Amino acid sequence: MSGKSIVIIGAGLSGTLLAIRLAQRGFKVQLHEKRADMRHVQMSAGRSINMALSDRGIKALKLIGMDEFMLNASIPMTGRMIHSPDGQTSLQPYSGRPGEYINSISRGGLNIGLLDKAESYENISLYFNSDCIDADTERGICRFRNTDGTISEVKADLFVGADGAGSALRNAFYKHSASLRFSFSQQFLTAGYKELHIPPGNEGGFLLEKNALHIWPRGRFMMIGLPNLDGSFTMTLFTDFDGENGFESLQAEDDVEKYFNKYFPDASALMPDLKKDFFMNPTGSLGTVKCWPWQYGGKFALLGDAAHAVVPFYGQGMNCSFEDCVVLDQLIDQYGDDWPSILPKYQDARKQNTDAIADLAVENFVEMRDLVADPVYIKKRQLETRLEFNYPDYFSKYSMVTFRADLPYSFAKEMGNKQNQLLMDICSTTSDISTLDTDAVMDQIRKLREDRQE
Amino acid sequence: MSGKSIVIIGAGLSGTLLAIRLAQRGFKVQLHEKRADMRHVQMSAGRSINMALSDRGIKALKLIGMDEFMLNASIPMTGRMIHSPDGQTSLQPYSGRPGEYINSISRGGLNIGLLDKAESYENISLYFNSDCIDADTERGICRFRNTDGTISEVKADLFVGADGAGSALRNAFYKHSASLRFSFSQQFLTAGYKELHIPPGNEGGFLLEKNALHIWPRGRFMMIGLPNLDGSFTMTLFTDFDGENGFESLQAEDDVEKYFNKYFPDASALMPDLKKDFFMNPTGSLGTVKCWPWQYGGKFALLGDAAHAVVPFYGQGMNCSFEDCVVLDQLIDQYGDDWPSILPKYQDARKQNTDAIADLAVENFVEMRDLVADPVYIKKRQLETRLEFNYPDYFSKYSMVTFRADLPYSFAKEMGNKQNQLLMDICSTTSDISTLDTDAVMDQIRKLREDRQE
Repeated sequence: MSGKSIVIIGAGLSGTLLAIRLAQRGFKVQLHEKRADMRHVQMSAGRSINMALSDRGIKALKLIGMDEFMLNASIPMTGRMIHSPDGQTSLQPYSGRPGEYINSISRGGLNIGLLDKAESYENISLYFNSDCIDADTERGICRFRNTDGTISEVKADLFVGADGAGSALRNAFYKHSASLRFSFSQQFLTAGYKELHIPPGNEGGFLLEKNALHIWPRGRFMMIGLPNLDGSFTMTLFTDFDGENGFESLQAEDDVEKYFNKYFPDASALMPDLKKDFFMNPTGSLGTVKCWPWQYGGKFALLGDAAHAVVPFYGQGMNCSFEDCVVLDQLIDQYGDDWPSILPKYQDARKQNTDAIADLAVENFVEMRDLVADPVYIKKRQLETRLEFNYPDYFSKYSMVTFRADLPYSFAKEMGNKQNQLLMDICSTTSDISTLDTDAVMDQIRKLREDRQE
Repeated sequence: MSGKSIVIIGAGLSGTLLAIRLAQRGFKVQLHEKRADMRHVQMSAGRSINMALSDRGIKALKLIGMDEFMLNASIPMTGRMIHSPDGQTSLQPYSGRPGEYINSISRGGLNIGLLDKAESYENISLYFNSDCIDADTERGICRFRNTDGTISEVKADLFVGADGAGSALRNAFYKHSASLRFSFSQQFLTAGYKELHIPPGNEGGFLLEKNALHIWPRGRFMMIGLPNLDGSFTMTLFTDFDGENGFESLQAEDDVEKYFNKYFPDASALMPDLKKDFFMNPTGSLGTVKCWPWQYGGKFALLGDAAHAVVPFYGQGMNCSFEDCVVLDQLIDQYGDDWPSILPKYQDARKQNTDAIADLAVENFVEMRDLVADPVYIKKRQLETRLEFNYPDYFSKYSMVTFRADLPYSFAKEMGNKQNQLLMDICSTTSDISTLDTDAVMDQIRKLREDRQE
């Protein structure tokens, strides 16, 4: 297959991972990135510095032989550390089973690791500052603007748009909406986000529990914190743009100081640069992108955020995009380089699952900012931890999404929501869950699964 | 208010109607249309030649004093004439009350009537071949490309984008998606449409019943026909693009002939140019557009299809867009030319209603192509006709949408669906509905309404 050429637009996480996998299979790959090589320039601050790597993402990294390398550069987070307004903390484990945890990893570090690996393949050509400005789906070409302003027309057997939520290839599909019948939606939440920072302690240590994802749930808003290898934490405030306690209410330094001292006193004591960070860093918006179709003519395909940008509240954006690569790879096993056969099957296999994780991610915002502090919810999580510890066949919704790379997101969503309904009902009518007959609970859970399969 | 200037983009139906109303109120209006003046050029064939004018639209026409003029140029349609495959017909009245009917009107005729009227106002300036290419929401200007290729920058107190489903003003909002948090969706149906034609009879008469909207329901597909003043009917085939009986199965003249003879024998006998029309006319796609917000900075607003394009199956696209004008006009009564107060209230008042009619229109495709031939549905319509005849306070969902301009679409949708559920349940378990105690049925209906109001 070595004569066949593939152009990937976007050398972010999923584009670069896919390039590596295709190169390993012997394809000739061009990887075009509109930005400069991130290995030689300063990263822009304030936008998603780290992320949570979990099983679906690890499965994809394993495919290219980089899972151990990346896990060595990450920090396990075994549960959510809930911070109440009075500074009390309590850990809600992600699972009742050992080995089921997520991993805080630097976006930049992961991307650089992938780029270094990509560069080691002779059959990958890297083009930085190469900005895809248009695709001509009829002629089967893409146009790129080079650093010197010149335009190159590129031909290939396959073009993959892995160019993120603002995808140029998707925009080309959009331009021909009526003839392609290109359905498209972007939906913004009323909330936005702001990245902040807790530096390492004086001795370089972690000032909060290292192996946890920290949450300060406050009802309509929340802050979260993820550990970095250097002992620092990347903090992210999520709150509405408008209204009480929203960004618009935080215009003056004084407002910000009062707000953090009131709602996040334990964290703000660890944030010496809070006010500087708050006013220097941009306020990001949070959007979901869905579209259809993802492919055109067996020659152009969308992948990752370009096809399905999600909000970050399930920690699955990257993992889901990596899973796109795994699915494509499985189809190449079956169909070789027969892209007109592969691409329709690829989009059909993915669409319901990426829709499911997009919806789950929006729903999880409510769970994180509000529900994790709810007494019935807390009981439910304790019950689930017990079930996971005692029953190898029990998996919470979170576990199915996060630790069961073998289950489709759509299944996790459907079964997870049914389980949650059942367990919340049980916990809302049970004063002491330690007295519960868990065998009977499991019978009900298994019945849910069987009912679905019938 | 005469010194204040308003720019309306798009001299289609709702843009021109709004221009007239604003001129009547003393505003200075520029009306820009990217196409040539339709009064002097040949209309393009094959795209929505006529439409169904009903009460919401009539209310808007009344506002500008053109309701009688337009009704004189339209043909009342008192019900749906259902054509079965064997050529049998049966009329399903739209209402059990006299005076509740819809009106077939030529889109071109209506638009020309509005343009003629607009031209009679000194304070309306008409610009044809003036193509809005961009809006600079920060600077508060719009740019137009003139016939000679030059670009004009236009300032105004208010810009209204009434420029249809592909709105340039909406595209300007879309370009700044992240900063405006501009949520947007376009969804295409799997079906498309093709316009066809039944000419007048030899003596100029109507070859089908004149005062009806004709439907040939065939399950997954259907044809409809609307009367024109000259005795002809505009026919529209709606079917899937792909699959059995879809457009892709109708590639050869022979396929088309067989298909029409099999499914629409009575109609095809009246269509001498069927094959020519079928292959000459474009196959249109059917999309729904939703977006939010509709306004920016109290200076830019979307109206009509630009804000909420709907599929044609409820016959409400134009009526709904005209209702936008009515709502804007009511707000001007209250707030004068205080656009920063008016525009947010305008979008808040309209959004849930335009979302409702968009969803109703999609649902009605199923009703028209399939349900109208269902025995239980037919019973239900008979029962509703009886209720409307006997109880002044009964209105079917269709009637609430179509004849009750005083009820919001969102109410019509919610209450209409509840009523339908109730009546379908009753009709599916009643063999002879003439024996039904309609007083008891009405008690249940009224209870639904009361429950909602509590």
